[in-house]
Amino acid sequence: MRWIHPEELEALAVGAAILGTGGGGDPFIGKLMAQEAMRETGPVALLDPEELEDDALVLPTAMMGAPTVMIEKVPEGMEAYRALRAEERRLGRKADATSPIECGGVNSQIPFAVAARAGIPVVDGDGMGRAFPELQMETFHVYGVAGTPAVVADERGAVVTLETPENFQLEWLARGVTIRMGGHAHLVDYPMSGRDFKRTAVRGTISMGLAIGRAVREARSRGRHPVDALLEATRDSIYGHGVRLFEGKVVDVERRTREGFAVGRAILQGLRADQGSRLEIRFQNENLVALRDGEVMATVPDLISVLDSETGLAVTTERIRYGQRVTVIGIPTPEIMRSEAALKVWGPRAFGYDLPFVPLEVRFREQYRQWGVPREKERYLVA
Amino acid sequence: MRWIHPEELEALAVGAAILGTGGGGDPFIGKLMAQEAMRETGPVALLDPEELEDDALVLPTAMMGAPTVMIEKVPEGMEAYRALRAEERRLGRKADATSPIECGGVNSQIPFAVAARAGIPVVDGDGMGRAFPELQMETFHVYGVAGTPAVVADERGAVVTLETPENFQLEWLARGVTIRMGGHAHLVDYPMSGRDFKRTAVRGTISMGLAIGRAVREARSRGRHPVDALLEATRDSIYGHGVRLFEGKVVDVERRTREGFAVGRAILQGLRADQGSRLEIRFQNENLVALRDGEVMATVPDLISVLDSETGLAVTTERIRYGQRVTVIGIPTPEIMRSEAALKVWGPRAFGYDLPFVPLEVRFREQYRQWGVPREKERYLVA
Repeated sequence: MRWIHPEELEALAVGAAILGTGGGGDPFIGKLMAQEAMRETGPVALLDPEELEDDALVLPTAMMGAPTVMIEKVPEGMEAYRALRAEERRLGRKADATSPIECGGVNSQIPFAVAARAGIPVVDGDGMGRAFPELQMETFHVYGVAGTPAVVADERGAVVTLETPENFQLEWLARGVTIRMGGHAHLVDYPMSGRDFKRTAVRGTISMGLAIGRAVREARSRGRHPVDALLEATRDSIYGHGVRLFEGKVVDVERRTREGFAVGRAILQGLRADQGSRLEIRFQNENLVALRDGEVMATVPDLISVLDSETGLAVTTERIRYGQRVTVIGIPTPEIMRSEAALKVWGPRAFGYDLPFVPLEVRFREQYRQWGVPREKERYLVA
Repeated sequence: MRWIHPEELEALAVGAAILGTGGGGDPFIGKLMAQEAMRETGPVALLDPEELEDDALVLPTAMMGAPTVMIEKVPEGMEAYRALRAEERRLGRKADATSPIECGGVNSQIPFAVAARAGIPVVDGDGMGRAFPELQMETFHVYGVAGTPAVVADERGAVVTLETPENFQLEWLARGVTIRMGGHAHLVDYPMSGRDFKRTAVRGTISMGLAIGRAVREARSRGRHPVDALLEATRDSIYGHGVRLFEGKVVDVERRTREGFAVGRAILQGLRADQGSRLEIRFQNENLVALRDGEVMATVPDLISVLDSETGLAVTTERIRYGQRVTVIGIPTPEIMRSEAALKVWGPRAFGYDLPFVPLEVRFREQYRQWGVPREKERYLVA
């Protein structure tokens, strides 16, 4: 257990934007909400999942809906806390901890706002290890945790409790409620025991967000380039060493809104070592596939993040635009997100791409042999 | 208190279709659901509201959504019962009775299916005294009862509990959930005390449905015309004597679906005493305004019902078609539905017609002087 102070949330926001892989919503708005809550109540405890009692009650908290709407219709700040309290009433029991469902983007921060107000710790783990657009795209779902009772709350005081026989219907109904609440709402879903959290969560994802965020922010003062510092900071995580995929200039962006998602692609013209090549990134809120001169370089669920080449800060799919100089990196997805069951939910085919998932460790095998990978990923290095 | 036997539900369906004023959904499907439940459990007690203890818990039950969908996607039968049980869990208390929220159409029957399964009585009263399309269009809302906690349930086992600070948001969110549940769902709303039910409900509406349904069904065997028998049966109710507005042939129907409602108008060419005149009926699910040769004859919330001229059975807005010979009747709305607060919610202006509500008793004053009206309506007869 360690204490997270309000000023650390800035680094977490920088890191979470990178883990958002282009989507996940603006973590800086979430940061303001969490900092406001912590100003009243002080720092929040961050628990290692191992510190959870088996029979502890963990209530993950998040925001859902269109991140674009969040900028226009700013949250009132108590929504997720009200959802937590309603869930406690429904279950007849107090929460022992909250956690993110998604460590990328705004949802890295929401649990800190809730934890501060409720006086409970945040657990260092989540259900996505990155950002994904739907509620069944969580390790909690993949490994058999029921998504409900779930609670969706708005800024006017409305609270909707959903109980569904399966988790796809949770997503479907909660999405409908969120739309009618004005486009975004807050929620508690996948209420679970400490035992289930330890079994199903992607671990250490808040620490990962903090580490890479700090690396980017502090690089200059240490005489390092932010992108180099970031890639190095990924090395000792459960993700594994991030890899530089491409450096270039944005020369074309196609983007449209389809069924509430920002769908499209960005084309980059190579610079420096990548001079003469083109990279195409296809996205649906999050970056899904990167093609270099037509050949696949990386796919979901590996993390594909677009960074400002100068500052190392994330460039989201909403903000990418002509003329930007960017560096595209890949970060290997944690092992728990690569099972057959997991890839069915968020492999390339789940997003409509007829492609197998070939991990970065395989695509860049020689490089990973040099770097080494976490022990549970060593099989990818076998020739 | 008296017992309602399954075979009586046929008369109730005939009467409720007339009280549905063109809308309200097909009561004959509801009848089958209620009869099936009662076959297992026997007759259901019908309580006069006066028999309710002040602190009894009344949980009104209903179906909501597009009646057209109900014909294609037949309910599973336990939805409203599951909603009742979920509401009891939420409130921490068993229901002492259920009631309709709407006595017109399918919702006259749903409480009987629930009551049979739960072993509780149905209270003889509702929140509309007819059919209306939205959840805030209830006397319960008009006279200050909170619509939530409300529960919406589908045929797959999903249960959604809504808590909203006000009743328009209940309608908005419940409608969204219903759409995502496939177009129709069942619900409990306006949970209330016996005291509140007695204060706010339109009373005796199930009895009214039974009485007019019986009158229509039994007229022939008593040597009466069904429409005459029906009008006579309205006389001693809290509604007051129904009045024949027009007899004619349907010569034109315009109907389109707009935001989930069947909106349009029917034109009738007069027959017999009405030869040479035309009647126009404008509807939005329910019949809202009747114009004879361009002059207003009747408006919502007075009941405007189109009947088959031969059988006296209701012709709904979905089924009205060219060539039908129909008789249009008006039934005065009960006094509790005419307050200023009530007319704000369902007067002609609430449906977009720039018309005052002029009651049938005023429009046909001479006739009502002869017939007499219930005492609380006598002021309408003052010259």
